[in-house]
Amino acid sequence: MINNLAERAVTHYSGIRTFTEELVQPLEIEDFIVQSTSDVSPPKWHMAHTTWFFERFVLKPFKESYQEFHPHFDYLFNSYYETIGTFHPRYKRGVLARPTIEEVYTYRKHVDENIVELLENLDDSLLEEVKDLLEIGLHHEQQHQELLLTDIKYNFFQNPLKPLYTQLKETAKEQTLMIFKEFQGGLVEIGYQGGEFSFDNEHPRHKVWLEPYKLASRLVTNGEYLAFMKDGGYEKPQYWLSDGWAAVKNYGWTSPLYWKEDEQEWTQFTLSGEKPLNLEEPVCHVSFYEADAYARWAGKRLPTEAEWEYAAEGVAIEGNFVETQHFHPLSADLEAKGLLCKMYGDVWEWTSSAYGPYPGSKPMEGALGEYNAKFMCNQMVLRGGSCATPSSHIRATYRNFFQPEKRWQFSGIRLAED
Amino acid sequence: MINNLAERAVTHYSGIRTFTEELVQPLEIEDFIVQSTSDVSPPKWHMAHTTWFFERFVLKPFKESYQEFHPHFDYLFNSYYETIGTFHPRYKRGVLARPTIEEVYTYRKHVDENIVELLENLDDSLLEEVKDLLEIGLHHEQQHQELLLTDIKYNFFQNPLKPLYTQLKETAKEQTLMIFKEFQGGLVEIGYQGGEFSFDNEHPRHKVWLEPYKLASRLVTNGEYLAFMKDGGYEKPQYWLSDGWAAVKNYGWTSPLYWKEDEQEWTQFTLSGEKPLNLEEPVCHVSFYEADAYARWAGKRLPTEAEWEYAAEGVAIEGNFVETQHFHPLSADLEAKGLLCKMYGDVWEWTSSAYGPYPGSKPMEGALGEYNAKFMCNQMVLRGGSCATPSSHIRATYRNFFQPEKRWQFSGIRLAED
Amino acid sequence: MINNLAERAVTHYSGIRTFTEELVQPLEIEDFIVQSTSDVSPPKWHMAHTTWFFERFVLKPFKESYQEFHPHFDYLFNSYYETIGTFHPRYKRGVLARPTIEEVYTYRKHVDENIVELLENLDDSLLEEVKDLLEIGLHHEQQHQELLLTDIKYNFFQNPLKPLYTQLKETAKEQTLMIFKEFQGGLVEIGYQGGEFSFDNEHPRHKVWLEPYKLASRLVTNGEYLAFMKDGGYEKPQYWLSDGWAAVKNYGWTSPLYWKEDEQEWTQFTLSGEKPLNLEEPVCHVSFYEADAYARWAGKRLPTEAEWEYAAEGVAIEGNFVETQHFHPLSADLEAKGLLCKMYGDVWEWTSSAYGPYPGSKPMEGALGEYNAKFMCNQMVLRGGSCATPSSHIRATYRNFFQPEKRWQFSGIRLAED
Amino acid sequence: MINNLAERAVTHYSGIRTFTEELVQPLEIEDFIVQSTSDVSPPKWHMAHTTWFFERFVLKPFKESYQEFHPHFDYLFNSYYETIGTFHPRYKRGVLARPTIEEVYTYRKHVDENIVELLENLDDSLLEEVKDLLEIGLHHEQQHQELLLTDIKYNFFQNPLKPLYTQLKETAKEQTLMIFKEFQGGLVEIGYQGGEFSFDNEHPRHKVWLEPYKLASRLVTNGEYLAFMKDGGYEKPQYWLSDGWAAVKNYGWTSPLYWKEDEQEWTQFTLSGEKPLNLEEPVCHVSFYEADAYARWAGKRLPTEAEWEYAAEGVAIEGNFVETQHFHPLSADLEAKGLLCKMYGDVWEWTSSAYGPYPGSKPMEGALGEYNAKFMCNQMVLRGGSCATPSSHIRATYRNFFQPEKRWQFSGIRLAED
Repeated sequence: MINNLAERAVTHYSGIRTFTEELVQPLEIEDFIVQSTSDVSPPKWHMAHTTWFFERFVLKPFKESYQEFHPHFDYLFNSYYETIGTFHPRYKRGVLARPTIEEVYTYRKHVDENIVELLENLDDSLLEEVKDLLEIGLHHEQQHQELLLTDIKYNFFQNPLKPLYTQLKETAKEQTLMIFKEFQGGLVEIGYQGGEFSFDNEHPRHKVWLEPYKLASRLVTNGEYLAFMKDGGYEKPQYWLSDGWAAVKNYGWTSPLYWKEDEQEWTQFTLSGEKPLNLEEPVCHVSFYEADAYARWAGKRLPTEAEWEYAAEGVAIEGNFVETQHFHPLSADLEAKGLLCKMYGDVWEWTSSAYGPYPGSKPMEGALGEYNAKFMCNQMVLRGGSCATPSSHIRATYRNFFQPEKRWQFSGIRLAED
Repeated sequence: MINNLAERAVTHYSGIRTFTEELVQPLEIEDFIVQSTSDVSPPKWHMAHTTWFFERFVLKPFKESYQEFHPHFDYLFNSYYETIGTFHPRYKRGVLARPTIEEVYTYRKHVDENIVELLENLDDSLLEEVKDLLEIGLHHEQQHQELLLTDIKYNFFQNPLKPLYTQLKETAKEQTLMIFKEFQGGLVEIGYQGGEFSFDNEHPRHKVWLEPYKLASRLVTNGEYLAFMKDGGYEKPQYWLSDGWAAVKNYGWTSPLYWKEDEQEWTQFTLSGEKPLNLEEPVCHVSFYEADAYARWAGKRLPTEAEWEYAAEGVAIEGNFVETQHFHPLSADLEAKGLLCKMYGDVWEWTSSAYGPYPGSKPMEGALGEYNAKFMCNQMVLRGGSCATPSSHIRATYRNFFQPEKRWQFSGIRLAED
Repeated sequence: MINNLAERAVTHYSGIRTFTEELVQPLEIEDFIVQSTSDVSPPKWHMAHTTWFFERFVLKPFKESYQEFHPHFDYLFNSYYETIGTFHPRYKRGVLARPTIEEVYTYRKHVDENIVELLENLDDSLLEEVKDLLEIGLHHEQQHQELLLTDIKYNFFQNPLKPLYTQLKETAKEQTLMIFKEFQGGLVEIGYQGGEFSFDNEHPRHKVWLEPYKLASRLVTNGEYLAFMKDGGYEKPQYWLSDGWAAVKNYGWTSPLYWKEDEQEWTQFTLSGEKPLNLEEPVCHVSFYEADAYARWAGKRLPTEAEWEYAAEGVAIEGNFVETQHFHPLSADLEAKGLLCKMYGDVWEWTSSAYGPYPGSKPMEGALGEYNAKFMCNQMVLRGGSCATPSSHIRATYRNFFQPEKRWQFSGIRLAED
Repeated sequence: MINNLAERAVTHYSGIRTFTEELVQPLEIEDFIVQSTSDVSPPKWHMAHTTWFFERFVLKPFKESYQEFHPHFDYLFNSYYETIGTFHPRYKRGVLARPTIEEVYTYRKHVDENIVELLENLDDSLLEEVKDLLEIGLHHEQQHQELLLTDIKYNFFQNPLKPLYTQLKETAKEQTLMIFKEFQGGLVEIGYQGGEFSFDNEHPRHKVWLEPYKLASRLVTNGEYLAFMKDGGYEKPQYWLSDGWAAVKNYGWTSPLYWKEDEQEWTQFTLSGEKPLNLEEPVCHVSFYEADAYARWAGKRLPTEAEWEYAAEGVAIEGNFVETQHFHPLSADLEAKGLLCKMYGDVWEWTSSAYGPYPGSKPMEGALGEYNAKFMCNQMVLRGGSCATPSSHIRATYRNFFQPEKRWQFSGIRLAED
């Protein structure tokens, strides 16, 4: 007989695992193989790697009778856990025609069945530890659900045939006025506190002193960003950090990623193809450098992650997440509840904070200590989730992070000022 | 009613087109997409590009009613014909998940049917011209049949799972003694002369003065090459051209491509997987630099292409071609007929001749003038065909060419001396 | 008649300008030209660029009669001020044989004379503004005095002849025990406050909450760092940030810069040549990545810049600065006064803080706003000055910053713990 | 008492050695150090390397009492002789501030005195061998005299101050009509034969069959090349070899090296500064790719090296060599003697021949075997010498060679046709 806890765990596990497979339904077999730049991974790789995560961190240590699915998969599907062993180089993931997709589905099934079996027969003494690891694995899988979408988008964009992932209805709401909500600051606390899941990098909850600040009521729109461009934003070094200006020159940036100008009309590539640029939608696929330059041009600045989190704590976690199946940011609702609109969903919001450890923080033990901690250099924090994030994955204290020049995530801009 | 000439042309055309599809039978859909280095192309690309060749150079100019299959295919499947228009960059062919394989098969069928229709209804006045272009297209397809095999081999090798293309029987004949056959030389002629197909780069037949020379009766074997390695061949700069020595250092070469040493046993990756190194087989997958260094170590030299061709003219075109389905060079038969064994098939033989125009040569007219002529710089000539070459594709005057550092073709060594 | 203020300004100005020229006395003309990597600049360039700084920011705007020395020098000797105009690329500074050293000395003299003339005749209403700019220019010159030494050291090291900059006496004091001094933290303040010179990046003084922490009484020594190396420090990824581990692999790091192992004896290249490694001296020329990895190996961490500054505020600014003419860190004095030894001088101390703006900060106006602010990304803060820093240049609030992989500055390690 | 042979040898030796020092008279000490791209070497390096050549190949083996000047110079001034030992990497020659110029002059003096002493006391039995090596060393020095000029020109061009090497008088003769002289060809001989000095790569004299051909009476001019440019020469791929077209794109070529367009006026940088482009002068500083593309555009071709040599054999070796001190090609004299004008001097003439060994050739023995032979791949032959070549250095059989993309030599175009 299965206890209730295990049953709920199985349901939870299966729900998230199944959602991954739903997300790849629109793909052809050929689409699973491509890695069009080293930042993205082939969809097949995401599906196998998330499975490997459960095999390596749950089944191998906790299921005695477990039979490894394939002796090479530790090498092929380890992403970056150096303390586990050598692994296939990231930039060469597109070289791997094999295992086939069918074999990867078999691998997923094999691991899923074993996880269920493990849960149904687990000794109570191990239940807590296994449940915690499963929870990490599922949040890990949700992160890859988002990456699946951003990587498919990038791959499709590289193909002159511009394949469609989905057919989307258009939206064209007008934006509300941008106003700046005041916060008094003072000695506040940030970081996770509570009984649900959270990552090690959100700990410990700790005190931070905040000077009074203001936060914009909504995101910067495409129309506003276009004004920056028309004012020579990409030609005037005074708006840019030194490394940002170098990126403008090196990469030849003249607009956000996925924008294109055709006979003075701007279009934007989306998961439902190339669309006329909607000026009311939040600007998206900008780097930290562009967000920072835009803010300087606008006479504002980006918020720190503490400012963002402190403001977000009271806001309900609602919005345009992956479940809406828009797969694209939406313009703000005129009847937005409250002054801070779209803090969650739509686009990740760049902060001015470099990603680093919280005071007194301790990474997870063992190989999972590599999960977050070793990236705490040369990256900037983003907050709030996007239209590709599962809603159950996000919270006020959640810290996402990317290098300041990356643009293929759904990343946008919320302004702040002193 | 179809005339006999057209009927024969259709049979010839279909035979070669079908053989391409037979060669890819062992592949999974996933295998068609991968480009593991910019030298190789994805199998799908070869299948579409050869089809595009007929569409672009035969159907569009000669079949009035012809409906282009897809408006983007000129961009996607033009390889390098600059005078036709811009094309998808070579190194990014692995980015193209779409069109799917199924669509490429439909494309092939569409073009094939149109070619047959064209042939069956062709005005006599155009027959000759169309037949000539078809002939080029078919020889072009045969070149890509060889590339399909060398590229699949390279892609499979990059995958740690080391997939099999085929299951091959082992062979281990002993080699005959290498002797050097003498040629008197003098004022001889080389270049194509005759009524069958030949490429523009084999023309015109012209006089060349040859000093007396000797040519080895057989190819250099793995065993002989291993002796060079054991004598420090890859560590002693005195055997190497300057650019060759730089290649040794840059690429870290210590053996031919596909060789691996495991606990003092050498293995070789083949289209039927990793095999113990057969010392009696011809050495294969060496660059020009390695062939040249080996020859210098052995106190010999490579033949010029004129020396090779002059010696080959009397030799029957028999041997281990793609039709044997060995897909790998074989050791020489002890009862080899005549003194020059394996001039054709098994491995392409590097010559000491830089690839250049013959005196008085004229490239083909129009875009096809780019087929051969524009590569006449920085490449070395290879002669004789390989185990991946269709036997009907080769002849004594045939000039293959690659950059001196390339190793993924079936390329080997025949020695010469003064 | 010259007023006293102007007289003192002239004396101050001349003193620092003269010291630059003293620092290059040991050089041959040839030494002034070399740029052995793009991080360093040729000594000649430093001498001209610091002069250009006064010409461009003081003489041109404030001395009406001023005659520009050379029309190309704005292009040649502007370092990175984008808003002033285009400039010679940094990595190509070693291409500039001309102007000759002699011409650069003439340039210096020309500017110096004009500055003196300006000061002696300055209208009182402008005095304050000019004095502020001169002060920035002189602190700027002091920064380049340090760079002159670190760049000469790097250039000399690249030459197999290993030239000497100076002859130094050996030192070999024993180190004191490393103990950890406790700080209670709480709501403290950091940032500059006072009437002397400070850079814009030290402002405003602001509140920071500090948890209790401990700071090491002295710097990590060569001997201690060697223990890390012998324990496999450079081979074990678990100690390293992800980008740090990539740097270890890419650059092939196995020790600090300037160390070399000869038959199991370690030597270290210094401005007085190659010396046996003194185990008692502070370890130097390590990157942030190495400092961070060492700290993790030692079970400690690096301090934040706020922790460092709060601890340093009471400490007297004494130590081994450029004026001692050791040009090399010294081992700690056994009779060190107080618990925090060598907070100033000897080596810059890496902190765990990414370089960013203080809350409410404002960069200087105009082109000088580019001086510090535009580098606030991808760099880490260092504190305390080094054996190449002029003592009058440093203070508790001073923020130096470099990319985390840089090693050619005199940079070392002080540990902290919770 | 000195015998006459030795006396003549000393005079010959001193004359050429002294001329090197005359060539660098216009330089400042700073100019001796710069290496503005890896193709060029610092002038100081040329002066030391040519000296090292005599020390290493003459003094060390033949002068028993010889004291090596400096133990590191074998490492620093060996250019590329792998069989002698490791050497300082070519691209890092600009890093070497030391030895100083003064020390290099001392080195030259030391070696020169020893050479004279050797010659004056040489045993008759060794005289021939030593004289041969000296001769190679002197021709080697003459090659570096040319490189000194081309490298100084390139370095000066990289400096925005555009220093002058010399002050030259202008010349503006009108060009004669270009006519094509016919040659019957047949079985001819090329390669050196005779008792004077020649390099190993000119041997042996051997038979070559030449079809009838025509050679242009004079070089292509700037004006003619400009017509090619105005006709879209750099935009039309049909004129270019595949690798040439790639070079146009990669390097952004739109004209020969050293040309610049200012408000529709073309200028050309010369050793006497920037000058208006003289349309009557021979075009210069073009790559093989440009020469080849120009020829194709003009409906002609480049000559083979055999065609060039066969035509040149009757032509007197007169012309604009380094001794004229123009250091720049001159327009042809209207009264040119004979139909083939400027076969020698002015500019090296690109041929269509890849640089390779002559049939039956043998490289020199020992390390000097690396002098020419190991470069026989990926380079094209140039003939005839230039305005930077010493006149005593050149002859009809002389083979110069460079990679097809190089442009910093004085290289130009003579057309041929069938």
